Amino acid sequence: MRYLHTMVRVKDLEKSMDFYRLLGLEEVRRHESEEGRFTLVFMAPPGQPECPVELTYNWDGDEGLPSDSRHFGHLAYEVEDIYGKCAELQAAGVVINRPPRDGRMAFVRSPDNVSIELLQKGGAKPPEEPWASMGNTGHW
Amino acid sequence: MRYLHTMVRVKDLEKSMDFYRLLGLEEVRRHESEEGRFTLVFMAPPGQPECPVELTYNWDGDEGLPSDSRHFGHLAYEVEDIYGKCAELQAAGVVINRPPRDGRMAFVRSPDNVSIELLQKGGAKPPEEPWASMGNTGHW
Repeated sequence: MRYLHTMVRVKDLEKSMDFYRLLGLEEVRRHESEEGRFTLVFMAPPGQPECPVELTYNWDGDEGLPSDSRHFGHLAYEVEDIYGKCAELQAAGVVINRPPRDGRMAFVRSPDNVSIELLQKGGAKPPEEPWASMGNTGHW
Repeated sequence: MRYLHTMVRVKDLEKSMDFYRLLGLEEVRRHESEEGRFTLVFMAPPGQPECPVELTYNWDGDEGLPSDSRHFGHLAYEVEDIYGKCAELQAAGVVINRPPRDGRMAFVRSPDNVSIELLQKGGAKPPEEPWASMGNTGHW
């Protein structure tokens, strides 16, 4: 058996791809179905194409279920520099729901409310402002 | 950047571990926190420890959010023999929500309603009963 992907549904493909690109992922594969009226875009960290998130975009929309949940938690990625990554995300308008106060862990949400955990490679960095004293925003 | 895991919350750790074991995953790592009152169990396909699902078990429960969602789709795994795997799951009481009628794809749900896609390695097998004429059960 082999892990293939984690699938999330997106309402706006371009907006979502922008978000995941900003996070550091790149498109590794794409499948469009005229008949099924959907587009699947697989995005993975550079050098790690075997661990993609699959963005499912239904051309005719996808309503009816909650956009938050208890059973699904988050996607987690390790980053080289958690402060740099959070600054980059914030500059692009992404809310840092859980700032990396501890130099180790941050949470953001995708445009579709998918919770994303960012973890500092190699363990916690020394605390650094403005993050160290930044409060939480919402939940994640 | 590096993919680390997909996290799902579970209400009954043993029951969930049984399910994911049955699927073919094995425990690769575990973290218990007395202080935080939670247990994290990482389970991955044999030989693929870098792609785990993280089961988060909160000792005091975890209510309040929907147990179904629109944004999160599923976890996908490739299997050697989709008929054999579905038979094994079914014998253990797992509902095959979307039977592998096409010899290629099946869906089941975890005890916490997490949708799991199973895909036949190497592409579709020839149709086979009882799967070929089995209807869907619920959604996934």
